[in-house]
Amino acid sequence: MEIVKYPDRKDWKALTERATLDVTTLFDTVRGVLDDVRTQGDTALRKYEKLFDKVDLKELRVTPEEIQEAHALVPDELKQAILQAKQNIAAFHASQRFEGHKVQTAPGVTCWQKAVPIEKVGLYIPGGTAPLFSTVLMLAVPARIAGCREIVLCTPPNPEGKVHPAILYAADVAGVDCICKVGGSQAIAAMAYGTESVPKVYKIFGPGNQYVTAAKQWVSLREVAIDMPAGPSEVEVIADGNAHPEFIAADFLSQAEHGVDSQALLLTTEENIVPPVVEAIQKQLEALPRRDITEKALAHSRIIVLKDWAEVIDFTNLYAPEHLIIQTDNYQTLAEQVQNAGSIFMGPYTPESAGDYASGTNHTLPTNGYAHAYSGVNLDSFIKKMTFQEITPDGIAHLGDTIRTMAAHEHLDAHRNAVSVRLESLGKK
Amino acid sequence: MEIVKYPDRKDWKALTERATLDVTTLFDTVRGVLDDVRTQGDTALRKYEKLFDKVDLKELRVTPEEIQEAHALVPDELKQAILQAKQNIAAFHASQRFEGHKVQTAPGVTCWQKAVPIEKVGLYIPGGTAPLFSTVLMLAVPARIAGCREIVLCTPPNPEGKVHPAILYAADVAGVDCICKVGGSQAIAAMAYGTESVPKVYKIFGPGNQYVTAAKQWVSLREVAIDMPAGPSEVEVIADGNAHPEFIAADFLSQAEHGVDSQALLLTTEENIVPPVVEAIQKQLEALPRRDITEKALAHSRIIVLKDWAEVIDFTNLYAPEHLIIQTDNYQTLAEQVQNAGSIFMGPYTPESAGDYASGTNHTLPTNGYAHAYSGVNLDSFIKKMTFQEITPDGIAHLGDTIRTMAAHEHLDAHRNAVSVRLESLGKK
Repeated sequence: MEIVKYPDRKDWKALTERATLDVTTLFDTVRGVLDDVRTQGDTALRKYEKLFDKVDLKELRVTPEEIQEAHALVPDELKQAILQAKQNIAAFHASQRFEGHKVQTAPGVTCWQKAVPIEKVGLYIPGGTAPLFSTVLMLAVPARIAGCREIVLCTPPNPEGKVHPAILYAADVAGVDCICKVGGSQAIAAMAYGTESVPKVYKIFGPGNQYVTAAKQWVSLREVAIDMPAGPSEVEVIADGNAHPEFIAADFLSQAEHGVDSQALLLTTEENIVPPVVEAIQKQLEALPRRDITEKALAHSRIIVLKDWAEVIDFTNLYAPEHLIIQTDNYQTLAEQVQNAGSIFMGPYTPESAGDYASGTNHTLPTNGYAHAYSGVNLDSFIKKMTFQEITPDGIAHLGDTIRTMAAHEHLDAHRNAVSVRLESLGKK
Repeated sequence: MEIVKYPDRKDWKALTERATLDVTTLFDTVRGVLDDVRTQGDTALRKYEKLFDKVDLKELRVTPEEIQEAHALVPDELKQAILQAKQNIAAFHASQRFEGHKVQTAPGVTCWQKAVPIEKVGLYIPGGTAPLFSTVLMLAVPARIAGCREIVLCTPPNPEGKVHPAILYAADVAGVDCICKVGGSQAIAAMAYGTESVPKVYKIFGPGNQYVTAAKQWVSLREVAIDMPAGPSEVEVIADGNAHPEFIAADFLSQAEHGVDSQALLLTTEENIVPPVVEAIQKQLEALPRRDITEKALAHSRIIVLKDWAEVIDFTNLYAPEHLIIQTDNYQTLAEQVQNAGSIFMGPYTPESAGDYASGTNHTLPTNGYAHAYSGVNLDSFIKKMTFQEITPDGIAHLGDTIRTMAAHEHLDAHRNAVSVRLESLGKK
């Protein structure tokens, strides 16, 4: 963990560097898999599941019996938690519903937008030791609220050919239509192109390793939309002298445990809090099971002391953190000045883990500085806004010359003519 | 122009095929230019402007004097038209402003979204014979309404080193901050990486040839966001027996004149209208200056007769046209059933050219079936929605066990601990 005091502005850029991987270098690796799945469908999926997930699958789709079994296997305490989280996520995302209204932009010219769900969406949920049922909720609950007609979920099975019951339970209660036992870049290909077992979708969501990310990027160039480019997770904590060192340390570590590439930054104007925070981090770290991962992530994490709040805000807007936790007396004022961040956690009793699981906000957020231009996943991610317009005969008579003049100066005569034939039919020139 | 009557559903997919180019094959070509601009800045821009645009530029930025000159050169009639179009575009996009509201998802847990403008955006305007000042308005007007702080525009100069006055005039009245004389993939690189003269931006918008498109796709993999993947323009017209063959023909041709890859489809349930429409197309075509281009586009355009309106809607949703013009008695009913289209033009007096120029809707729309998943450019394209949350001590006491249970089952102990340290400080376990 690096501690930097009062850095010059010219050195700030270097302090915002993340550990990222250029997945474009993996395109050649994943394209073989993508092409195989596109041309050979389920046969290729079975081949790659055998190769990468060490499992020989007859049936690629999860059966209703397996879902019933999962309901019986998930402990009641976890079921209750999942249902509570689902309810809060649903409440927040339902509040984001878009209602367009008609606007008369000129006499007789009416324009409006309408939100229409993306018909078919695909969710990717990684495998590994931890079952990411929370991500199932974060993607499937808004998809259902948006009105997507078909929600497909792909996730790698374990070597016994099973999917973790908590993932199946969350997918079932969130309303996923079709769960397929496919992982890695072959899962992305399956949802992008469609196979006998896996329906083709129009947009793919969800986290994954570097091969999954490369495959998502590649298919997004032609076949499908994706949620956003992905990178390692990160948090920035802003704290003042009154912040609780234990809380800061806990938030720091809860980011660092995600993976060796994760990054945590602490920005403060008060150098006195640095020693107690460092001490609290050391103490809490000792009790953590994922200590190895966490220590590696701390190696490229930083505590940065700046001279005033204006510098803190400027640095934050430069870094554009995925998660931003503000634990200062003036947290409301500071939060209002942030221009670039994925999700902001305000005040001492708002840990990032609340938003990761259960407060209702989405945890799929822009990393790697993408918060400069991207929103996190929200209800908009599952819809598109179509525009409509209706023009009356009087409207085209009024607006016609404006259109014809512009078309003529862009040398687009047929565009001009499309107005002229209408004006002529109305007895105008 | 192909005329297809009552095709089988199994043949529909083939009838929705577009003439597209796989720009990923151009990545190797454009990467050399991108790398040069990234490492050599303005020097590389000058080199490529000499090579591709045959112009030796000292100053890459348009000067205030050149803008004044443009004001004098643009004819008054065109100025008035541009100002009228600007006003309508502003009215429609201003109506799209997002106001988030606070939602209490659980006791003591408050979540909300806030729209924040993307700080710096880049607009690309192609060169060529026709000055696309309408596209300047379509991109710069919403950017200004969204509140973007810096709007950069790149466009190739002519061999005299000048930019068309109508482009400069439109950019000036729309509020562009910085106009640079750079075109092609080097312009995309300049805005993605930044050079001495061209500011780095966070999102790039605008049309372009295949090299521009390939460059946009490539930089979107890491450096910046882009508006959407691009393809040739297209229109679908739906007409019944009462539709005016002259109007249909004019709309068909106004699409076809865009370029040799453009596509126009006519869907109808009434085969009697086919001969008069074909005749009107022939007649109007003869009078068009861009007849060569238009005829090539017509070669892959189609008139398709289907058996009922249900088939027309199903085909439309499969095709997902960029522009959809509905000229039928029941146009309102049909428009409501469309799920996949960029922009819909309703009724006989609503030509596509209205939306292309002056009704107020945006003309930057998803082509190539991307309307299945993408919106056209709208105010959302220039903002991101950040999420905020604030939890009270009672709120975390209420929600804490839900979070801790979920974190424990995902094996993320530090996430659980971030809640525990807070509950302990409140005297709870």
